[in-house]
Amino acid sequence: MELLIWVVPVAGIAAVLFALYLARDVMSRDTGTPEMVAVGDTIREGADAFVKRQYTTIGLLALVGAVVITVVIALVETREVADVPALAGAPIGIMTGIAFLVGAACSMASGIIGMFVSVRSNVRTAAAARTSLVGAVQVAMRGGAVSGFLVVALSLLGVWGIFTAYETFVADVTVAEAPFLIVGFGFGASFVALFAQLGGGIYTKAADVGSDLVGKVEAGIPEDDPRNAAVIADLVGDNVGDCAGRGADLFESTAAENIGAMILGVAAFAIADSAGWPNPEAWIFFPLVVRAFGLLATIVAMFFIRGSETENPMNILNRGYWVTTILSVGGLGLTTYLMMDTGGTISNGLPVWVWFFFAGIVGLATSVAFVYITQFYTAGTFRPVREIAEASRTGAATNIISGTAVGFETTFVTAISIGIALLSSHWLGQQAGLVNAAGHDVGGIFGTAVATMGMLMTTAYILAMDTFGPITDNAGGVAEFSRSEAHTREITDRLDAVGNTTKALTKGYAIASASLAAFLLFSAYIDKVNLIIGNQIEAGRTDIELLTSVNLADVGVFVAALMGAMLAYFFSSLAIRAVGKTAQSIIVEVRRQFREMPGIMDYTQRPDYARVVDITTRAALREMVAPGLVAVATPIVVGLLLGYQAVAGLLMVGTISGVLLATVLNNGGGAWDNAKKYIESGNLKDEDGNVLGKGTPAHAAAVVGDTVGDPFKDTAGPSLHVLVKLLATITLVLAPLFIR
Amino acid sequence: MELLIWVVPVAGIAAVLFALYLARDVMSRDTGTPEMVAVGDTIREGADAFVKRQYTTIGLLALVGAVVITVVIALVETREVADVPALAGAPIGIMTGIAFLVGAACSMASGIIGMFVSVRSNVRTAAAARTSLVGAVQVAMRGGAVSGFLVVALSLLGVWGIFTAYETFVADVTVAEAPFLIVGFGFGASFVALFAQLGGGIYTKAADVGSDLVGKVEAGIPEDDPRNAAVIADLVGDNVGDCAGRGADLFESTAAENIGAMILGVAAFAIADSAGWPNPEAWIFFPLVVRAFGLLATIVAMFFIRGSETENPMNILNRGYWVTTILSVGGLGLTTYLMMDTGGTISNGLPVWVWFFFAGIVGLATSVAFVYITQFYTAGTFRPVREIAEASRTGAATNIISGTAVGFETTFVTAISIGIALLSSHWLGQQAGLVNAAGHDVGGIFGTAVATMGMLMTTAYILAMDTFGPITDNAGGVAEFSRSEAHTREITDRLDAVGNTTKALTKGYAIASASLAAFLLFSAYIDKVNLIIGNQIEAGRTDIELLTSVNLADVGVFVAALMGAMLAYFFSSLAIRAVGKTAQSIIVEVRRQFREMPGIMDYTQRPDYARVVDITTRAALREMVAPGLVAVATPIVVGLLLGYQAVAGLLMVGTISGVLLATVLNNGGGAWDNAKKYIESGNLKDEDGNVLGKGTPAHAAAVVGDTVGDPFKDTAGPSLHVLVKLLATITLVLAPLFIR
Repeated sequence: MELLIWVVPVAGIAAVLFALYLARDVMSRDTGTPEMVAVGDTIREGADAFVKRQYTTIGLLALVGAVVITVVIALVETREVADVPALAGAPIGIMTGIAFLVGAACSMASGIIGMFVSVRSNVRTAAAARTSLVGAVQVAMRGGAVSGFLVVALSLLGVWGIFTAYETFVADVTVAEAPFLIVGFGFGASFVALFAQLGGGIYTKAADVGSDLVGKVEAGIPEDDPRNAAVIADLVGDNVGDCAGRGADLFESTAAENIGAMILGVAAFAIADSAGWPNPEAWIFFPLVVRAFGLLATIVAMFFIRGSETENPMNILNRGYWVTTILSVGGLGLTTYLMMDTGGTISNGLPVWVWFFFAGIVGLATSVAFVYITQFYTAGTFRPVREIAEASRTGAATNIISGTAVGFETTFVTAISIGIALLSSHWLGQQAGLVNAAGHDVGGIFGTAVATMGMLMTTAYILAMDTFGPITDNAGGVAEFSRSEAHTREITDRLDAVGNTTKALTKGYAIASASLAAFLLFSAYIDKVNLIIGNQIEAGRTDIELLTSVNLADVGVFVAALMGAMLAYFFSSLAIRAVGKTAQSIIVEVRRQFREMPGIMDYTQRPDYARVVDITTRAALREMVAPGLVAVATPIVVGLLLGYQAVAGLLMVGTISGVLLATVLNNGGGAWDNAKKYIESGNLKDEDGNVLGKGTPAHAAAVVGDTVGDPFKDTAGPSLHVLVKLLATITLVLAPLFIR
Repeated sequence: MELLIWVVPVAGIAAVLFALYLARDVMSRDTGTPEMVAVGDTIREGADAFVKRQYTTIGLLALVGAVVITVVIALVETREVADVPALAGAPIGIMTGIAFLVGAACSMASGIIGMFVSVRSNVRTAAAARTSLVGAVQVAMRGGAVSGFLVVALSLLGVWGIFTAYETFVADVTVAEAPFLIVGFGFGASFVALFAQLGGGIYTKAADVGSDLVGKVEAGIPEDDPRNAAVIADLVGDNVGDCAGRGADLFESTAAENIGAMILGVAAFAIADSAGWPNPEAWIFFPLVVRAFGLLATIVAMFFIRGSETENPMNILNRGYWVTTILSVGGLGLTTYLMMDTGGTISNGLPVWVWFFFAGIVGLATSVAFVYITQFYTAGTFRPVREIAEASRTGAATNIISGTAVGFETTFVTAISIGIALLSSHWLGQQAGLVNAAGHDVGGIFGTAVATMGMLMTTAYILAMDTFGPITDNAGGVAEFSRSEAHTREITDRLDAVGNTTKALTKGYAIASASLAAFLLFSAYIDKVNLIIGNQIEAGRTDIELLTSVNLADVGVFVAALMGAMLAYFFSSLAIRAVGKTAQSIIVEVRRQFREMPGIMDYTQRPDYARVVDITTRAALREMVAPGLVAVATPIVVGLLLGYQAVAGLLMVGTISGVLLATVLNNGGGAWDNAKKYIESGNLKDEDGNVLGKGTPAHAAAVVGDTVGDPFKDTAGPSLHVLVKLLATITLVLAPLFIR
């Protein structure tokens, strides 16, 4: 057992080394023509400038956050309300602050390194596309995998490291208490993710919308045309939004859900301990180990990314995904068998571990289900996208109405799938028969935690596929910008189309994992609240009871639930509006350049790309503050006014509302995007069978839909993922503040 | 006290007589030029045809529903689970079925009579506009008031009648049991309202969108042009959607909330009874009496609708609204003082009735707040609409993005207002110190019920203002269609603009009352469930406990909550898609007429208006079935699978989700509509100060937004109001089905 736990650092370090190997491999590739190098350098400089400024800002915010948290926790967590009374006051405050900072630092590091590699992979992918499709796929996927491995490995090593440090080196901390002490890590990760996703999401879509409006619409020049001063900002945006943003999002998911699962493991630990099962602490370590096996599975899968030049590139990527999934099933079986050792206890006819193995399979299956659901709703060959494309024939209004109907509709199968996953993993967990001293079942909740962990096993691979998206998108931009030959551009176009699909899949995956995790995270919140209240009752307090129910029929809980549901809309409104404002700044600047530098239009003058990048950066960072503060402040204000039970209501209903709204925004946006592509590929025909392609009113209508969908699917939607998890981590950390 | 209860039938009958007087008055007015009479007749025929066919369909559905309910309740409500054990089985089934049918019949009657008058008021308003603004306002407002008074009076008389009948003529029924037996009335009203709103909403917007697309966009002829065969269907649609639909919506609100409040009054009755206060049954009758005073206040207010020819017509209407509100405050004070007679009991320093009087004031204040909030977000002079208009300068995409941001934003102030209203009325109610035998406070919940009743006092007036909208809209259409002189059209245009505002206000009012009522209605659900479970426990059952908490941390409740939140989106998706499909049928038919009847374009051939009306009618009725069934089936399926506690979760979170989504759709749609009007009025200027009015690209972009907003604000949004209340009534009636 001791040995099995060492799988965690070993797998983590192996993944980091493997990421370095992949990075070296990518860096050693050909960078193509001098024109490609030039534009690649320009994108890289813009991205570096943004990253530097953004992470300076976020770092400062995180420092302030850490100080505030340290002070607040030190003041609030007196002996009476501390989850670990022996550490009450300053020690627990400092430990939470440190955990917060480590979480924030790891999240920032994975974002920065991922970006570092992805902005160097784009030009190399474009260069590889001159000779080979498979070669280009490999460069892009390896570049993406650097990000994927680092994000997951840093999250694993970070949680393991801080957990081990607190458990080993701090006196008074037992293995059952340590999980509660590291929730600050998850909060730090969420905090950084929120601003990374918001800032990146606002930047990328403002640059996209702004560049299109001022270039395509006003000046009448093509997309990605070098005369448009905003075009570099647009290419930079693909990296900072899709790559750094989603990286931070999934870093946070894995960290927060891992910690939440460990907290739930404490209840199982207590049962295992009193039942005299071998290795009771394995129930707490389980999430770490199962994720380590997921990482190892993904490393193996990277060697299966190969195929023929004539193959659909999506098949090549799918091959690796299925290898990861199948190996993960094996890893899951091994981990549950070895770690959930109950000395042979049989429950409902099967060994205990088998029930949890099945629960983990539910998680893996949910992940596969969401991959296909997202494809159905956003890929061009199916009914929803075709419907939107058909509606474009009667103009922009019907295109928007149809896309909205599709976006709304996607909540149905999403909610049903999540509901089935929750109910079935809970039922499977219940069958394991873990009943605590008070006679309550804890296996059910732990079943949902195992399902979430099963789902997270494939995160590194999913994230690699996601980062594949912006890299190939950029490779296409580089090819276009450097006026490469048609053959190269044909390959980059094919890769770009696949990248659009993988980006959509990741969002589906992220939303599904957020929903499964939600139930786990607020169970952890309830456990934490009860740990504190239990301590108070033991200390003699009589005017308080354990939180056994989050009662929606209580007016305070109901109003808090209403606030949580509203928060998803209000936050999205601020995020969408921020895109509009930032885009305005870009439009004003590009117009100025067209006016004051008349040589731009006939290629005799080079537009000032850097200035647009700089303006976009500053505007995006300015605009991310308001939604960020609203997200952080709302749960705190509601908690202070209405108490700890009400906050649980806000957390749960806020999660439901956020998950559904994100589904609408992501899938609606994705469907609009692909309806435009469907028309551009010549699939739409009029009543007489003539193709309605580029340049027709139907295409113009579809462009409107695509533009509307941009801030939905790339700013507001993904930011909602982060918001949902931030709600969970912030309430976990600040729970003592809400108990009076 | 006995005397005070007689206020109910007296006020109800007075309101009916007053409505007849108003109807006679309207009918006696001048019908204008022969051209006006001709077009008025055509609209009337179309509306009659739709009403006849729609209410035949709905009537059949209601009959089937009544039979099913009778059988289900008779089978399910055995002695063990019946809320009134003495009536278990067939008697309670038949009583519920009768209540359902009476509710359905009253709802249908109020819709039909309201439509009857409103389609006759339009042409008379147009005729009056030839000579006088105030005259036209009076005709339209009196026509609208017929609908307002009948809806509210029928709901009051219906609830009172069936309550009195069951309490008086059925042996074994006590005054405390009767409220539970009449919930079928609310369900019947909801059932009819759902289909009336869905069918009407689909019809009106399909006709609007279809007529615009095929006329304005394809054929290039103006709006309301007589050559467009769909134009009559469009004018008919204003009546069947806005007038009959909203009438059914508010009929249902008043009925369901009244019954819910009476159920909550039962708990207060028990306290009053055991405390020996005079007239304990007054706590149950209170909602009826306070509404009766609201009706009387509205009758008086009708005489204050007068003003000068140069005045803003909105001021004339506001005058009446404020008179209604102020008189309602008086009526509320009188009712609480007389009916909540506690023999002088003082609680927290004030007589008990004073606390509830304050709670009622909260309701009235909330209604006023929503009137102003809606105005801020949808009227052209404020920031949100200006913002959307400005965004139209960069095209349709930015117009849509900006409108979506505004729609999302409106949830903030909506949720905050509702939260404050709920918390404060609950707190005020708690201060009254009503504590039941088990030691639980019942005053808090009753406080929210009183607030809801306070809010509903002004319903008749609000509904009159609402119906004013379609009447003036139609009057404008009649004037345009009959090519009246410019002076007349100027007056009808002014009235139309006011009508747009009043229609938006009503939606804000309806949503606010639905949210306040939600809390009341699921408290009633819990009371009903506990009445049944209490009977079972008394009968010796030991494996069941009273429902004291709707525990969101229970996986079944959480999944049901997720389903409830999803239902709002999925239902809206079906409703929006239904509009698109119906509009397609219209487009095909009008295209056919243009093709096969070439004389239409040079006015030598009369388009076949009736055929378009008929096609729209059939398509709308066909398309309303799917969303209607989803709405009815979802709570039943969830209840059967997950049980009575889970259904409460679905009900509560479904309400939150439905209310917020309706807010987004209603206000977003209203803001888009008025952004277009803002541009048409010449308020938008380019950088050089030139007006960007009709015919500019900015206007075209705003038209796209307006068209998108149409099915949002007039089909999906209002249908969500009904959905929310249907969830409450269906679960109330079928509660025994979910208890096993």
